[in-house]
Amino acid sequence: MQSYTKSWALVARSVSARAPGRSLCSRSRTLGKPGAELAGNKPVLVAVRGLRGSAVFSSRKIERIMPRHDDFSERHIGPGDKEKQEMLDTLGVGTIDELIEKTIPSTIRLQRSLKMDDPVCENEILESLQKIASKNKIWRSFIGMGYYNCSVPPAIQRNLLENSGWVTQYTPYQPEVAQGRLESLLNYQTMVCDLTGMAVANASLLDEGTAAAEAMQLCHSYIGVKAVLKLPHEMDFSGKDVSGVLFQYPDTEGRVEDFTGLVDRAHKAGALACCATDLLALCILHPPGEFGVDIALGSSQRFGVPLCYGGPHAAFFSVKENLVRMMPGRMVGVTRDAAGKEVYRLALQTREQHIRRDKATSNIWAITLLWHRALLANMAAMFAVYHGPQGLRHIAERTHNATLILAEGLRRAGHKLQHEMFFDTLKIHCSVAAKDILERAAQRQINLRVYSEGVLGVSLDETVTERDLDDLLWVFGCESSAELIAEKMSNRTKGILATPFKRTSKFLTHPLFNSYHSETNLIRYMKRLENKDLSLVHSMIPLPITWKEFANIHPFVPLAQAEGYQQLFWQLERDLCELTGYDKISFQPNSGAQGEYAGLAAIKAYLNSKGETHRLVCLIPKSAHGTNPASAQMAGMKVQVVEVDRDGNIDIAHLKAMVDKHKTNLAAIMITYPSTNGVFEENISEVCELIHQHGGQVYLDGANMNAQMMGAKGLKHATEVAILNANYMAKRLEKHYKILYRGFVAHEFILDVRPFKKTANIEAVDVAKRLQDYESEDKAEMDRFCDALVGIRHEIAEIEEGRMDSRINPLKMAPHSLACISSSTWDRPYTRESAAFPMPFVKPETKFWPSISRIDDIYGDQHLVCTCPPMDIYESPFEQERASS
Amino acid sequence: MQSYTKSWALVARSVSARAPGRSLCSRSRTLGKPGAELAGNKPVLVAVRGLRGSAVFSSRKIERIMPRHDDFSERHIGPGDKEKQEMLDTLGVGTIDELIEKTIPSTIRLQRSLKMDDPVCENEILESLQKIASKNKIWRSFIGMGYYNCSVPPAIQRNLLENSGWVTQYTPYQPEVAQGRLESLLNYQTMVCDLTGMAVANASLLDEGTAAAEAMQLCHSYIGVKAVLKLPHEMDFSGKDVSGVLFQYPDTEGRVEDFTGLVDRAHKAGALACCATDLLALCILHPPGEFGVDIALGSSQRFGVPLCYGGPHAAFFSVKENLVRMMPGRMVGVTRDAAGKEVYRLALQTREQHIRRDKATSNIWAITLLWHRALLANMAAMFAVYHGPQGLRHIAERTHNATLILAEGLRRAGHKLQHEMFFDTLKIHCSVAAKDILERAAQRQINLRVYSEGVLGVSLDETVTERDLDDLLWVFGCESSAELIAEKMSNRTKGILATPFKRTSKFLTHPLFNSYHSETNLIRYMKRLENKDLSLVHSMIPLPITWKEFANIHPFVPLAQAEGYQQLFWQLERDLCELTGYDKISFQPNSGAQGEYAGLAAIKAYLNSKGETHRLVCLIPKSAHGTNPASAQMAGMKVQVVEVDRDGNIDIAHLKAMVDKHKTNLAAIMITYPSTNGVFEENISEVCELIHQHGGQVYLDGANMNAQMMGAKGLKHATEVAILNANYMAKRLEKHYKILYRGFVAHEFILDVRPFKKTANIEAVDVAKRLQDYESEDKAEMDRFCDALVGIRHEIAEIEEGRMDSRINPLKMAPHSLACISSSTWDRPYTRESAAFPMPFVKPETKFWPSISRIDDIYGDQHLVCTCPPMDIYESPFEQERASS
Repeated sequence: MQSYTKSWALVARSVSARAPGRSLCSRSRTLGKPGAELAGNKPVLVAVRGLRGSAVFSSRKIERIMPRHDDFSERHIGPGDKEKQEMLDTLGVGTIDELIEKTIPSTIRLQRSLKMDDPVCENEILESLQKIASKNKIWRSFIGMGYYNCSVPPAIQRNLLENSGWVTQYTPYQPEVAQGRLESLLNYQTMVCDLTGMAVANASLLDEGTAAAEAMQLCHSYIGVKAVLKLPHEMDFSGKDVSGVLFQYPDTEGRVEDFTGLVDRAHKAGALACCATDLLALCILHPPGEFGVDIALGSSQRFGVPLCYGGPHAAFFSVKENLVRMMPGRMVGVTRDAAGKEVYRLALQTREQHIRRDKATSNIWAITLLWHRALLANMAAMFAVYHGPQGLRHIAERTHNATLILAEGLRRAGHKLQHEMFFDTLKIHCSVAAKDILERAAQRQINLRVYSEGVLGVSLDETVTERDLDDLLWVFGCESSAELIAEKMSNRTKGILATPFKRTSKFLTHPLFNSYHSETNLIRYMKRLENKDLSLVHSMIPLPITWKEFANIHPFVPLAQAEGYQQLFWQLERDLCELTGYDKISFQPNSGAQGEYAGLAAIKAYLNSKGETHRLVCLIPKSAHGTNPASAQMAGMKVQVVEVDRDGNIDIAHLKAMVDKHKTNLAAIMITYPSTNGVFEENISEVCELIHQHGGQVYLDGANMNAQMMGAKGLKHATEVAILNANYMAKRLEKHYKILYRGFVAHEFILDVRPFKKTANIEAVDVAKRLQDYESEDKAEMDRFCDALVGIRHEIAEIEEGRMDSRINPLKMAPHSLACISSSTWDRPYTRESAAFPMPFVKPETKFWPSISRIDDIYGDQHLVCTCPPMDIYESPFEQERASS
Repeated sequence: MQSYTKSWALVARSVSARAPGRSLCSRSRTLGKPGAELAGNKPVLVAVRGLRGSAVFSSRKIERIMPRHDDFSERHIGPGDKEKQEMLDTLGVGTIDELIEKTIPSTIRLQRSLKMDDPVCENEILESLQKIASKNKIWRSFIGMGYYNCSVPPAIQRNLLENSGWVTQYTPYQPEVAQGRLESLLNYQTMVCDLTGMAVANASLLDEGTAAAEAMQLCHSYIGVKAVLKLPHEMDFSGKDVSGVLFQYPDTEGRVEDFTGLVDRAHKAGALACCATDLLALCILHPPGEFGVDIALGSSQRFGVPLCYGGPHAAFFSVKENLVRMMPGRMVGVTRDAAGKEVYRLALQTREQHIRRDKATSNIWAITLLWHRALLANMAAMFAVYHGPQGLRHIAERTHNATLILAEGLRRAGHKLQHEMFFDTLKIHCSVAAKDILERAAQRQINLRVYSEGVLGVSLDETVTERDLDDLLWVFGCESSAELIAEKMSNRTKGILATPFKRTSKFLTHPLFNSYHSETNLIRYMKRLENKDLSLVHSMIPLPITWKEFANIHPFVPLAQAEGYQQLFWQLERDLCELTGYDKISFQPNSGAQGEYAGLAAIKAYLNSKGETHRLVCLIPKSAHGTNPASAQMAGMKVQVVEVDRDGNIDIAHLKAMVDKHKTNLAAIMITYPSTNGVFEENISEVCELIHQHGGQVYLDGANMNAQMMGAKGLKHATEVAILNANYMAKRLEKHYKILYRGFVAHEFILDVRPFKKTANIEAVDVAKRLQDYESEDKAEMDRFCDALVGIRHEIAEIEEGRMDSRINPLKMAPHSLACISSSTWDRPYTRESAAFPMPFVKPETKFWPSISRIDDIYGDQHLVCTCPPMDIYESPFEQERASS
């Protein structure tokens, strides 16, 4: 449970909501004085640099005789020299340097090489990471505040968190090849609904702070009046100007309080009640959905996700039925496919298509781009699947009982507890000097929460052992042991279970949460889901986040225990500064969308500090990243759109006109570089100049920067190859498709399939679905991908030329599931083979099969179901005989 | 390269061949004085004990309030209480205790509970293993002797060694669902053939020592005269009584020698030439196949398999064409399936079916039972796939060049090298006190090989760095640095590449070894293979063998560096002693078959020590484990078969007769307990008594013991559940199939399908193949497995009753591949659905598809191909256009 309830300022939605206390400052490099660094007239350009510079041949003979053992960047980037030359030949370009010169305008190319460490091979990376990891010290942390130790089931860590089949899956925009994750996320939603007692939940948000801010945002847009937050007893609804109230249950100090009255008062005043809560506590605690709460939220970290110094974790967000269409983030819903089968997909996507980008008020949909975060929701869901309702209740009771034993011991030692009703967290007014207690804690390598002089906090969790309790009792000067205290305690005379706070309703009654409690069954279930989903099946290096030295560090430990993390931050900042030309980097934002908001908030703070509070106009070119307008709106700026020209560059004439029109109120321009059209803006310097001249700031979105930690040489190489790949593919496809913004392209390009609507009744979605039929495990190879697109173009031609029916054809019927292909019934005007194996490289033994037929989105949105549907329980066809035998 | 060339005694085939030097004694607990412990009259019975004893309820209140967090054995064993009760109801038995009483004769049940640690949960196991691991000290080892540091590519470690999809695969007796591993093992064979220059290789043996022993065994059976081994120059073939000569190239001291003359002399005398060699050296060294060697063998450990204190590793074994049908172990070969497709399977299996068990002379076929060892061959094969010929040559040259630099530095410092021609290993006569050198080595945490006073050894490997060389130079008192020495060295004026030893022939030219050098491609390739194979997809706990503290320990490091391993050995010995009732355990044998040999060798040594050298008769009941007779043969004993009765028990009358007949020459009886018929021998005590009375010893095979490390309670529980499962399945199937040895069964039972041959022309193989069609990811659940067998029985009935053709039916045509089911052509008298989805639980989305149709073994043995067949190289169907674009 985070401590923001008592720190009222929810100013910067994504930033400060999750930044309580001083520890955050030590946790990551902050923005410093926000705006100061961004203020000067230095250009804000971030080029993909290092594209020149001659290859370095070692002058040391020993390096020639005994060269580096292996080259990681070469392994990772892919095409060999032979392939590269073939691609260059196809492009009619002699060398990569020549291609780069044609692609990246010389005005924006960096004319020096990057100062970064030499590339190293994989084993060297791991070795150096191990050294860094060893600088982190793993103490036992009883700090709480929203972050708890947990016991990650090895089966889940191994087969989900460390499994490239789960880690590298694509965003499930194509539900036909993502049913596995969608099912798991539906489990997550069902788990959250059951535990909170709410009607609907989404498939996770970034973190608890974001969830809290989203709750307030929802209240505000739903009720339409300002959200004001105060201490519960201070709440005054009389002015009818309050849209929402947010409280914690249990709160950051551990207190369990009855909020029924507050919820009623809020409702009577037309306000919504939001409850930040704890999933483990709710296993034995009266859930918020049962006392009228409208929105329940919190972190699901303690359901089997490692601490990892504070993140990434997943937050849950659940609402009453009537708020479902206001829900932020993505929800998984049930619908049917073309064959009438019950299937899963992201629900209510259609609403977004009707929102004009520049009118959007929430940038939260960006979460789906950060799809790997769903991995953490999946971990939490599997944690619940593995333990089931009995297991979770067992863990909750065990944790609570341990807290009761500790509380009794502390009382005996003369300490005073601030709250008498608690789940796992105690606030302690010490009867002896806190300094002595903390010294003893340090002796046993224990971290406690420090409130103020003489006041300490302890939070227990599922990992607590008898030894932990004995150590804590010793630390607090209690002469008894946990065993002796337990002996003298009467059963359940104290604690939640003996009060009206006790949960009486059932939860997780669905068979899914009662079937996979053995390790084998769980692993098979996860594998079954994994195999339904298309993934890269590709992990760069083993994930060091699962090393205990990274995983088991609480975010609020003293700085000295986190020197390994600090070194990583420092090195990353150094390299990012070198790469971007900036002086300081903030690692605070938790996602790209949060970064946009933080950047604009910093710009606004800077302008305000100069007294220019009137500067509120934010220019956004049409080529900018999709979340930009919403972020500008949320930062309180006024969005003005700038046109782009035929080639995808910013329309300089229009920009000049807009700058001129808004010059007195100009705050910023937001540029995505390279743009989502795959173009390097040749005039980027001119654009920056223009904005700075008129007192504005430039925000640059690096969403397409695509630069990962391979050293300067590797980085340059990767960039070159990405550009080569894109141009090669564009060249191969240009005869078959219209390519928007042609010329030499940067890292991506756009195929225009709009003409086919008229000529063959084929839309983009048909091409996308048909591509699924061409999937094989080798698909990602460029040539095969191009072949697939060319093949599809030939199929379209057949329709255009009347040789194939325009309704029943391989595109409209795509994707073709295995059930469809193997059915006795086949009445299509094309063969099973052309449906399922349209290319020689799509072979039965390597084909990736969509697990369902084409999804029906409209049906799903009309019949919204966002929790697990009833399950076919296995019954033997010989059941009767089995029973009688 | 192991050092057995100089330790001539190849007495105990499997034991001492791999036990050079004193270090082995510290590495694992030895047999002590062999035979001494086995000698007394104490019964040698190993019962699956602990089957009684009341459940322990904790008397400590704190354990009741705060019980253990999770129960690992419960998670692992599977069925919950509800399922167990259902199964007991089906059996008409009230409790598990009652079932056990009916199953295990009271005479052999242990009447006390086992003294073992309490069960712990998974995270506790990992924590305690981590503590143990930390007791191992990772120094840099330059010891060599057949074990080298290597750089395990993280992509392989992660996606193969640590991947339950690869680790838990079944033995590929059903090649239709094992094409992935078979392909990888074929790659291994191809790699070995290419590097050694030999015609045929097998799919790995246990270790280099076993391979060497097998080579001698092959010479002996092929030539038919005794194998005698001497130093090369001492070899005297004049007596024409030599069947084989074995030499090392390079040898254990590092020397590279020209053996052409020796090979010629051997051939002229009618003897075979066997060469133990090193795969990495052969990347730049003239291969043995090119100077007439008949058998080449060695360890493939240094191709990407961690040291792990000496094993498990894989050995390679390759022969000339004419010896192929004498090859020990299993070979993968190419054949065709029912659809005519080129596919893989274990070659020459049929030969074994014609060997009478009691006439077998090699027990090596047991390797297929230890199929997980093939995993290590697969790792080595993938290592070659990943690096390719250029990469391997690069590694070999780099290693060799580093050795040349070191050699030059040592010479400068005044040391004398024993051999002037070497690859990676130096034998050094020190010019200063070796004691001082070793002291300096210890300061830098470096292990060297110690020969004798004043003589040291250094072996380099692919992981060597400039820093390693500098450290070694410093250790040996050389004042120069590796860099300075390298500067002054002329290119290639020294070393293998400037001599006739240089390899001139190409290797690994097959596209397979030239296609997957990028990480992504390799991982996709491995995933493609993995997905063809049925596996448990089930890992009990993360494999600690990949932790560096276990992985990076050379087998011959000083004992003080391996205290973690020692603790594991000690704990395992303690528990195994408790479980088996013995006083000492040897962990020396590397497989069950080696254990048999070691046990019999010990018995023989014991009898010899008493002067009873004439005792050579070994009794073996028909119910004994399949490798027993061969092991007895190899130990020089005379096998006599004992009959079993209708219930599968030893026929006591026949045993008495046999004992009486052979009483003066009786050496031992070999008993498998419980037997392979799934029966607990009620008369085991009587049997032991009888043998002991007549001066014999009892060897007990624990092949079916099935007892893994879950604590005494968990162990008891697992045994009970295994017995419950088997009895439940037998009960469900008894109405449909004839069950041999019925009554209450132990852990397994036998279905008799022989009658169907007459009634429906159906044989066991048809049932086995048809079971593949019933595979789904959930198959292992007992009820589904029973349903599948019942379903197949119904299909057989249809044939019996004339409703289904006796040649073209779902059984004869099984298994049905995806290609077959999805083909436009379907002319079978049954539907696609009944072929592919014969039960409701076999669904398109979870079905496991055989990747090929039924295999043709006979064709494969007639057209033996044991290296990679030509490959379909991908060509775009739009190739012409692609070339022209």
